[in-house]
Amino acid sequence: MSIRVGIVGYGNLGKGVELAVKSAPDMETKGIFTRRDVNSVNAYDKAIPVYSLDRIEEYKDEFDVMILCSGSAKDLPEQTPAISKIFNVVDSFDTHAKIPEHFARVDEAAKQGKKSAVISAGWDPGMFSLNRLYSDSILTDGEEATFWGRGVSQGHSDAIRRIDGVLDARQYTVPVEEAIEKARNGEAGSLTTRDKHLRECYVVAKEGADKARIEHEIVTMPNYFADYNTTVTFMEEEEFKKVHNTMPHGGFVIKTGRTGIAKENAHVIEYKLKLDSNPEFTASVLVALARAAVRLNQEGKCGASTIFDVPPAYLSYKSAEELRKSML
Amino acid sequence: MSIRVGIVGYGNLGKGVELAVKSAPDMETKGIFTRRDVNSVNAYDKAIPVYSLDRIEEYKDEFDVMILCSGSAKDLPEQTPAISKIFNVVDSFDTHAKIPEHFARVDEAAKQGKKSAVISAGWDPGMFSLNRLYSDSILTDGEEATFWGRGVSQGHSDAIRRIDGVLDARQYTVPVEEAIEKARNGEAGSLTTRDKHLRECYVVAKEGADKARIEHEIVTMPNYFADYNTTVTFMEEEEFKKVHNTMPHGGFVIKTGRTGIAKENAHVIEYKLKLDSNPEFTASVLVALARAAVRLNQEGKCGASTIFDVPPAYLSYKSAEELRKSML
Repeated sequence: MSIRVGIVGYGNLGKGVELAVKSAPDMETKGIFTRRDVNSVNAYDKAIPVYSLDRIEEYKDEFDVMILCSGSAKDLPEQTPAISKIFNVVDSFDTHAKIPEHFARVDEAAKQGKKSAVISAGWDPGMFSLNRLYSDSILTDGEEATFWGRGVSQGHSDAIRRIDGVLDARQYTVPVEEAIEKARNGEAGSLTTRDKHLRECYVVAKEGADKARIEHEIVTMPNYFADYNTTVTFMEEEEFKKVHNTMPHGGFVIKTGRTGIAKENAHVIEYKLKLDSNPEFTASVLVALARAAVRLNQEGKCGASTIFDVPPAYLSYKSAEELRKSML
Repeated sequence: MSIRVGIVGYGNLGKGVELAVKSAPDMETKGIFTRRDVNSVNAYDKAIPVYSLDRIEEYKDEFDVMILCSGSAKDLPEQTPAISKIFNVVDSFDTHAKIPEHFARVDEAAKQGKKSAVISAGWDPGMFSLNRLYSDSILTDGEEATFWGRGVSQGHSDAIRRIDGVLDARQYTVPVEEAIEKARNGEAGSLTTRDKHLRECYVVAKEGADKARIEHEIVTMPNYFADYNTTVTFMEEEEFKKVHNTMPHGGFVIKTGRTGIAKENAHVIEYKLKLDSNPEFTASVLVALARAAVRLNQEGKCGASTIFDVPPAYLSYKSAEELRKSML
């Protein structure tokens, strides 16, 4: 029998999950849960029922796992603990600094409900984290650097849109090629924040707005831009909508380390992603981990986990025998 | 208390394991086991005792895990099952086609002895396999290609050395840049064996040997060279020993896949290794998995496993909390 998947939240990520489940031979989307008017949600597949999130508990016997596709800032801190009491869940909680706290709350809730919850799935946190962990375990004596981009940062784009006089904006994080080369040469430790990434901002100003002031507010904004080399390009709305309408992203995790009696041998481990659609790729990781969450629960491993705790084979629909034969 | 490691076999790989254990803050090499005269083995660290392999069973209470550093062709098929009845073990069995059979034999033996055995650890099989598995689980609709090199193939070098008139030889496997680019563009499926790799052979001929015949025998050798573009370069022994005295290797696992309602979004996942010393890097992976074998055994998971079955966090000496905080 197929794994019965529910999708909570139907924005870009939720849509990506619907498509990724469709590509999985062992899973089926059995319902979408939303806080919006259920009639306003149009799934790609019209046969998938849309339910009000308020009533999710009524469906507790009809789903094997819920994939939570809401935002990390406001929604997941409440939703993941609440829903993991009732269902196995996967979320993409990505506020790195708050992961320990989120983990603890979800762990308690999921254990209470005897459910399995995999938190912080995606590519960073997620696949990038995994590569940091494996590389650190292998090359204990080394340096690591993570680069992001070229890709859209939603958080930085939002920060620009909050500036007075801004109609729309988009920020691309761009890794600096020279810094990537330095990381490959084992010099990651010498790189500053400014060395590693540029921030490219494309801004649509409201009519009559003071562009010089907007630019100044952007490049001096603490935490977001002040520590970076930042470029600001103003555009007309029509052109902006034509050029900046996709969600590419990606990046690199580069680990270098040395071995040998005199540390004479250098090694480089590099993991690279190049993604046309950040939400669709993230969704594909979530779906693989949803399969793992179901499996963990079948084995009685209740509570919270991350991708660090999940045996890799659990992400695949293929049997252990088939994996050993075809991929090892 | 430190994890007490034994090293079985003290060639290049065993030496690499000694060094990698020295870099691990939670492990200690407590002994080396050899089939050779124990007085002929000189560990880097003179304080490490060297024992005869025949007497390994006498030490069953003194080691937490044995890292098996013998060859896959003749030794490991016998040694891993025999030793995994007595100790937790890790091996680097790399004859891909015989992995299912090896797994079954080790699984039976380790279960009999209530021990945990991780087989086929290293980078291929090993880290490359892991990347094939994760990528296949995420991008179900895609193509994968593995490239090896530039690096020394021991098996191909040996095959050349068996040719009449050859004094010494070394073969480098070289990935073809155009083929790597095609794989990144999602065209992995179109690549033939000949497209993907070149084989560079450096040969020292015996005095008076017929070099034209040797070259012909190399390039037409079935399985090893006939399906590849192969170059043969003859060298003087002195020069050969000066130039071809290190063991570099590496390679790429490249996965491409598409998502989207009309499969309009392309994604590339690329994992790359660049290694100055193949045996020392392989040894570093074995040591991380030795830690995992001990942990699996503590949890009562007896029998054979591969890197596919091991929760990633088990490879690290850091606690789950620390990993979530610092690497997720």
